[in-house]
Amino acid sequence: MTAKDTSLKGLLVHAVKDIYYAEKQILKTLPKLVEKAKHAELKTALESHRKETEQHVQRLEDVFAELDIKPAAVKCEAIEGILKEGDEVLSEFGSGAAGDAGIIFAAQAVEHYEINRYGTMHEWATELKLNSVAKLLKKTLDEEHKADSKLTSLAVSGENREGIVRQAAA
Amino acid sequence: MTAKDTSLKGLLVHAVKDIYYAEKQILKTLPKLVEKAKHAELKTALESHRKETEQHVQRLEDVFAELDIKPAAVKCEAIEGILKEGDEVLSEFGSGAAGDAGIIFAAQAVEHYEINRYGTMHEWATELKLNSVAKLLKKTLDEEHKADSKLTSLAVSGENREGIVRQAAA
Repeated sequence: MTAKDTSLKGLLVHAVKDIYYAEKQILKTLPKLVEKAKHAELKTALESHRKETEQHVQRLEDVFAELDIKPAAVKCEAIEGILKEGDEVLSEFGSGAAGDAGIIFAAQAVEHYEINRYGTMHEWATELKLNSVAKLLKKTLDEEHKADSKLTSLAVSGENREGIVRQAAA
Repeated sequence: MTAKDTSLKGLLVHAVKDIYYAEKQILKTLPKLVEKAKHAELKTALESHRKETEQHVQRLEDVFAELDIKPAAVKCEAIEGILKEGDEVLSEFGSGAAGDAGIIFAAQAVEHYEINRYGTMHEWATELKLNSVAKLLKKTLDEEHKADSKLTSLAVSGENREGIVRQAAA
């Protein structure tokens, strides 16, 4: 392995431990969002993403196995900050008439962080020819993309938005 | 204004104050990344984004003026976390052979957060028919997208990646 590959693998292992911590924190947070969501379709989307997140944790344990290291979480300051920020938004705006917009705002900050991280980790694993690892990361990446698109469609698409608005204003 | 519009405007004002804080923190952090970057093109891209970030702060002051409120920053826990995380990655990996990959990793977490925030704020401003505000936010959103794409091209495109690798391994 070249010095650069060794260094890149170190980065990858750090990133996997970091997102392992993040996924577990997200798993604890999602039920709060499900509970607060007003619009039924948003509630369902968040609950389905909670179930997916359980699989993401499991899949990272498979990644650890492929990398031949024990699963370990490293405190992820970024997700701590993003979730703390989300809590603030929810406690200030979550019960208001645009509460669901606030929930989507908080949830998408998480999704975008994950997409960024899984995207880069997938890139690195590919570069390092760790094909099984790359495949596992890609699977979660695709699911995060879908979850994000679903949230966007609930936030911006005319009919759904109207649905949210009507529900929230009721 | 409907109850929902009032609530959405509250969310927008909160988000603007939040990103105003974030942009100022990013402005303090970018020179550290410029200094650490090894590849000349990455250094230039980060320095040019630093200059753009100065304009983003100014543009948010124009947004405050359009909203008829005094510029005020609200501590953004998300960016605090993202930058703290970036610091950790840089101090552990920034000087290694894949140091530039670590810098891009840290910088893109910031970009993705900003793209998510500006994207949603633009959406809300449009929904609220605050057209001048929407226009200002869109301008920054476009610049953040371009900065992110530039980082991606430096991270993944064959030739540039080789350039980074050769430089880092030298």
